[in-house]
Amino acid sequence: MVKYDPKTWLSLIFHSYSRQVMKTLFPALLAMGLYTSGIVFLFLEVFDFRFSSTHVVHSLLGIVLGLFLVFRVNSAYDRWWEGRKLWGLLLNNSRNLAAKISSFISKDDDVNRRFFAQMIPNFAMSMKEHLREGVDLEDLDIVEDVLDRVKGKNHIPNTISLMIYERITQMYNEKKITGEQFFVLDKEVKEFSDILGGCERIRNTPIPYSYSMFIKKFIFTYTVTLPFAFLFDFLYWTVPIVLMVFFILVSVELIAEEIEDPFGRDVNDLPTDDLCEKIKNNVRELLIH
Amino acid sequence: MVKYDPKTWLSLIFHSYSRQVMKTLFPALLAMGLYTSGIVFLFLEVFDFRFSSTHVVHSLLGIVLGLFLVFRVNSAYDRWWEGRKLWGLLLNNSRNLAAKISSFISKDDDVNRRFFAQMIPNFAMSMKEHLREGVDLEDLDIVEDVLDRVKGKNHIPNTISLMIYERITQMYNEKKITGEQFFVLDKEVKEFSDILGGCERIRNTPIPYSYSMFIKKFIFTYTVTLPFAFLFDFLYWTVPIVLMVFFILVSVELIAEEIEDPFGRDVNDLPTDDLCEKIKNNVRELLIH
Amino acid sequence: MVKYDPKTWLSLIFHSYSRQVMKTLFPALLAMGLYTSGIVFLFLEVFDFRFSSTHVVHSLLGIVLGLFLVFRVNSAYDRWWEGRKLWGLLLNNSRNLAAKISSFISKDDDVNRRFFAQMIPNFAMSMKEHLREGVDLEDLDIVEDVLDRVKGKNHIPNTISLMIYERITQMYNEKKITGEQFFVLDKEVKEFSDILGGCERIRNTPIPYSYSMFIKKFIFTYTVTLPFAFLFDFLYWTVPIVLMVFFILVSVELIAEEIEDPFGRDVNDLPTDDLCEKIKNNVRELLIH
Amino acid sequence: MVKYDPKTWLSLIFHSYSRQVMKTLFPALLAMGLYTSGIVFLFLEVFDFRFSSTHVVHSLLGIVLGLFLVFRVNSAYDRWWEGRKLWGLLLNNSRNLAAKISSFISKDDDVNRRFFAQMIPNFAMSMKEHLREGVDLEDLDIVEDVLDRVKGKNHIPNTISLMIYERITQMYNEKKITGEQFFVLDKEVKEFSDILGGCERIRNTPIPYSYSMFIKKFIFTYTVTLPFAFLFDFLYWTVPIVLMVFFILVSVELIAEEIEDPFGRDVNDLPTDDLCEKIKNNVRELLIH
Amino acid sequence: MVKYDPKTWLSLIFHSYSRQVMKTLFPALLAMGLYTSGIVFLFLEVFDFRFSSTHVVHSLLGIVLGLFLVFRVNSAYDRWWEGRKLWGLLLNNSRNLAAKISSFISKDDDVNRRFFAQMIPNFAMSMKEHLREGVDLEDLDIVEDVLDRVKGKNHIPNTISLMIYERITQMYNEKKITGEQFFVLDKEVKEFSDILGGCERIRNTPIPYSYSMFIKKFIFTYTVTLPFAFLFDFLYWTVPIVLMVFFILVSVELIAEEIEDPFGRDVNDLPTDDLCEKIKNNVRELLIH
Repeated sequence: MVKYDPKTWLSLIFHSYSRQVMKTLFPALLAMGLYTSGIVFLFLEVFDFRFSSTHVVHSLLGIVLGLFLVFRVNSAYDRWWEGRKLWGLLLNNSRNLAAKISSFISKDDDVNRRFFAQMIPNFAMSMKEHLREGVDLEDLDIVEDVLDRVKGKNHIPNTISLMIYERITQMYNEKKITGEQFFVLDKEVKEFSDILGGCERIRNTPIPYSYSMFIKKFIFTYTVTLPFAFLFDFLYWTVPIVLMVFFILVSVELIAEEIEDPFGRDVNDLPTDDLCEKIKNNVRELLIH
Repeated sequence: MVKYDPKTWLSLIFHSYSRQVMKTLFPALLAMGLYTSGIVFLFLEVFDFRFSSTHVVHSLLGIVLGLFLVFRVNSAYDRWWEGRKLWGLLLNNSRNLAAKISSFISKDDDVNRRFFAQMIPNFAMSMKEHLREGVDLEDLDIVEDVLDRVKGKNHIPNTISLMIYERITQMYNEKKITGEQFFVLDKEVKEFSDILGGCERIRNTPIPYSYSMFIKKFIFTYTVTLPFAFLFDFLYWTVPIVLMVFFILVSVELIAEEIEDPFGRDVNDLPTDDLCEKIKNNVRELLIH
Repeated sequence: MVKYDPKTWLSLIFHSYSRQVMKTLFPALLAMGLYTSGIVFLFLEVFDFRFSSTHVVHSLLGIVLGLFLVFRVNSAYDRWWEGRKLWGLLLNNSRNLAAKISSFISKDDDVNRRFFAQMIPNFAMSMKEHLREGVDLEDLDIVEDVLDRVKGKNHIPNTISLMIYERITQMYNEKKITGEQFFVLDKEVKEFSDILGGCERIRNTPIPYSYSMFIKKFIFTYTVTLPFAFLFDFLYWTVPIVLMVFFILVSVELIAEEIEDPFGRDVNDLPTDDLCEKIKNNVRELLIH
Repeated sequence: MVKYDPKTWLSLIFHSYSRQVMKTLFPALLAMGLYTSGIVFLFLEVFDFRFSSTHVVHSLLGIVLGLFLVFRVNSAYDRWWEGRKLWGLLLNNSRNLAAKISSFISKDDDVNRRFFAQMIPNFAMSMKEHLREGVDLEDLDIVEDVLDRVKGKNHIPNTISLMIYERITQMYNEKKITGEQFFVLDKEVKEFSDILGGCERIRNTPIPYSYSMFIKKFIFTYTVTLPFAFLFDFLYWTVPIVLMVFFILVSVELIAEEIEDPFGRDVNDLPTDDLCEKIKNNVRELLIH
Repeated sequence: MVKYDPKTWLSLIFHSYSRQVMKTLFPALLAMGLYTSGIVFLFLEVFDFRFSSTHVVHSLLGIVLGLFLVFRVNSAYDRWWEGRKLWGLLLNNSRNLAAKISSFISKDDDVNRRFFAQMIPNFAMSMKEHLREGVDLEDLDIVEDVLDRVKGKNHIPNTISLMIYERITQMYNEKKITGEQFFVLDKEVKEFSDILGGCERIRNTPIPYSYSMFIKKFIFTYTVTLPFAFLFDFLYWTVPIVLMVFFILVSVELIAEEIEDPFGRDVNDLPTDDLCEKIKNNVRELLIH
């Protein structure tokens, strides 16, 4: 995530979009420019053929298209914000779980303290990578005897969450924690799994196929017919005007696409690396004095 | 569900809609095209009768219609997303329930382990089919002695959920699990039934009759009167223009209808088959070592 | 509730509205038609007086009015959907409560089994009637000795919910259920009362008085001044145009009014009769083998 | 709250707004009328100066303003509805708490029964007054020995809620209720305090200062410049047209202001007096046989 | 936070914005005024060059821009309201925790009473400062022996919340409170940490970079091209008209920026200082008689 001050207007106005967006936008603008110039040239210089302009159709459809784009961006923003909420919860929960365990078990129980000090941050780290390309076990902080269980599993974060839960049940069976304390810890671990499920859902489910297709078809049809609406009014000025409209419409959709999946490494993505680091430091501080 | 990359503009723009949508859209477009051509021909060539155009009425109503369509799509999308959430919860819950039971009961309790390893995925599978046409008992993975209880019941997923709950109560009565553990499992099973209820609600309740009727009446009235608004301005160009507007308005409503019921086998529907398979593998891995 | 297939366009387009809506709509359309015809006739034939048209005012206000109507319908739809959710929960909860009680108490406890098999469906049935005109005790399925307690009470569903709760406390005091089981049942019964409260709220609270009044005043002012805007442009065509706009605006408000209170017997109302029947059958099946 | 039937169009259309709204609206309309008349007279009769009309600017800004007003009313409506939900919850919770206590303690425990039969309705009544001008102890139904503790406290509803909680803890310490029952009652009392907090939040927090200021500035700028847009097109007809637009815009904002704080004694306010009476009767019926 | 009466229209209309907003707005208005005047002068007096006006493009894009701005303000308002909810919860929770502890422990347990009477308000106070620039330990009310533990920690509110939790666990271990009471207090403390996490999320996460950039780019492009649309219609009147549109568009974005971060010391910010004071007084009153 880029850290930025939303109040610096000038730099924001003249800063270019992310490379990802520009890579799609630039060729599209070029193609649209050529197409519009061609149309304008043909009708003004070559063909001897005039028709009255159709502003009214594009005004009407423009509002409908505008409404769709605004809702598109907002549903993308809602996902982004939900992803942010889930990661905020993860930070909170990791701290809570560590704090509770630390105050429940004795100060000398080094084995369990070290276990949780490793496994709680491991959950966050493996979840972060799981939401990108997949987990590389090298990134985790795992002791030898645990490594065997994790290796070869498909779903590393789930395996780790299960190991945490088993350890808690074991402490309960060994009467290291009471029934009420077991219950309190159970709720914390359950939330880990809900957070993971929520993030996987956001990551794996783009907006419905037909909806996405419809918006792109609509933008395409709209801009391809736009030159005919302006042709005889603005003559060669049609080209910059059509490009401006095209630029605005397409960049809305591109931004929505970028925001929609907030777990990658784009400028708009959530600062999951920083959050993992924070979880690691906090949990250590709480469990190992 | 079709897996697609939302960033591939070109293929999305030129790809045709799902067969279901085209089957409704194509005859409608044809009829509309014939109707508009007829009107235009009659007024331009046959009747000797002119009136001033009524752009203004269609502009005004067009915005209102646009607003309704956008909200229509969005309320359909909300259902789709709620359905997705519920299935995500089901996956999570199945894993959680299996993991908890696995860590509560002894490693040798083969009877109970096998029971839950069968019944938890059976719940998901029967729910998936229940939301389509009905459950075929052949699809489930059921041992002989259980089959009798399920056979002949109307509501298979409910019966399965009840059997899971009874088994847990029995384990509690036999002191295989403690009071706290019973309580923890009770909450997990309750969520199964909430998920099922949520999905049934989405599936069985289309938008209110009057609302649906109103939108269709509005689209119809709007497009049927549209040729009169463009007739004397665009002459024969009226036909493609009216068809474009008609195409956009009707496809919005058709897409909304498709998205609204997300449990079928359409391209927009949720990947419930995959999710069931995932649940089966996960639960097995957790319960049977 | 009318069962309908949202994909049958033709029948939906040409089907007339519910009788309730038509009864308000028809005289209003007639009055509006007469009024507009009168205005048009007076200004075109009688008065010798012309003014420039005011499309622009009606375009502007039309968008604002359109926005209000769309939000109006959507807040009505939200209530309808919330009512649907609550009834879905009721079905779920009745099943859950019955299933839990059935697995908690012994198979021979005929007294309690019969009590709950009667009272849980009675709650749903009395709630359904309570949300309409009031409860007729004949509709309920009540044994003699219970009838006395219910008779003469104002709020039948509440009395029934209280009786269920007292019976559960009694079973707890008699040690027929454990502390954890009491706790589990307490949560189920609490939800009954929340569902009832939610439905009463939807039923007893129309949208704020000023808001409702404002929308009606706005529609009235808008349509009454509309003929003046079209008069000199469309001449006698003004009458059908004004009627079309009027028809669309008023039917939106009428539909919103109908959807807003979803517990009656209109075509748009929820299928509460069916749901009650379902609850009755399900609960019986679960409790009495 | 005015009880009204939302389906009586005629009376709603011709009924005047609440006195509060009229008191602001009438002088504003008068001032605006004088101002517009002055402008029109000056430009038409006195100055010899013409400019082309600026419909386009007001059309454009009109849509933006309309959007703001609609969202303004809707966020006010959301508060109103949230307030209604909270009071619905209060009714439910009071009944639940009374019913649970009644079934937990013995039928002869007159002291505690009378205590809760007084204090639960006292909570609702003091909260109602607390959300208006402040609590008058005379309104409450308090026995002598309790009066001393309440007198002199700033926050009466909180004091009452605390007294209820202390009594429950005391009953738990005296083993009159079990641990599970204590837990169940704790949750009910916690909700009282959440309801109170929610209502205080709605009551004490108007929309942000800048936002409120912006909307009023926008309406003012818009209507003050409006005559210049219509002047040369509609001549003296400008006055009624501007007044109509002004009336609609300002009344939206006024209605939003009225709805936003739903705990007073306006026609739009919630029926809190009735609800308190209902709570009193219900709780008595439940606790004192 | 400025306390204001939303019903005083006159003062709100003529009151200027906050200094923060004016500091950005004034130079922008000046620059825009000079730019527009320059353009108008050049085209009217210097160049001999005319083109037809492009109202239609700006009308179309204006609606889209308006939609974006309205949604922008509303998502900012949602954060502001969420922040308000969280602080309301904090007040409630602090009172609840104090009341519960007070009724659980004996009246003579001065050590624990004083501990909580200090630490609960300390949590609120340190959280308030943490959301601004950072916590100055001087502001807190801390006894000597506790000071050492807090000093040198990065995250003061978390440390305080941990100390509260540890004290409760200790009281549970010393059997000063029962298992049910421990459970009840655990839930209250967990909410403290959720509130803190929610506020940190709002504070640290501005809207996505691309989205913020897009809106500013859009406003800029729109207003910079606006003079060309009005030039030949309104001549020198173009300057005030463009400035009015520019003023409205930019102030929407500025207001959104101000509202979005509600924990500072602006006029729009939440009254966190007052709330802290209230918490302090309430908690003291409850714990120390």
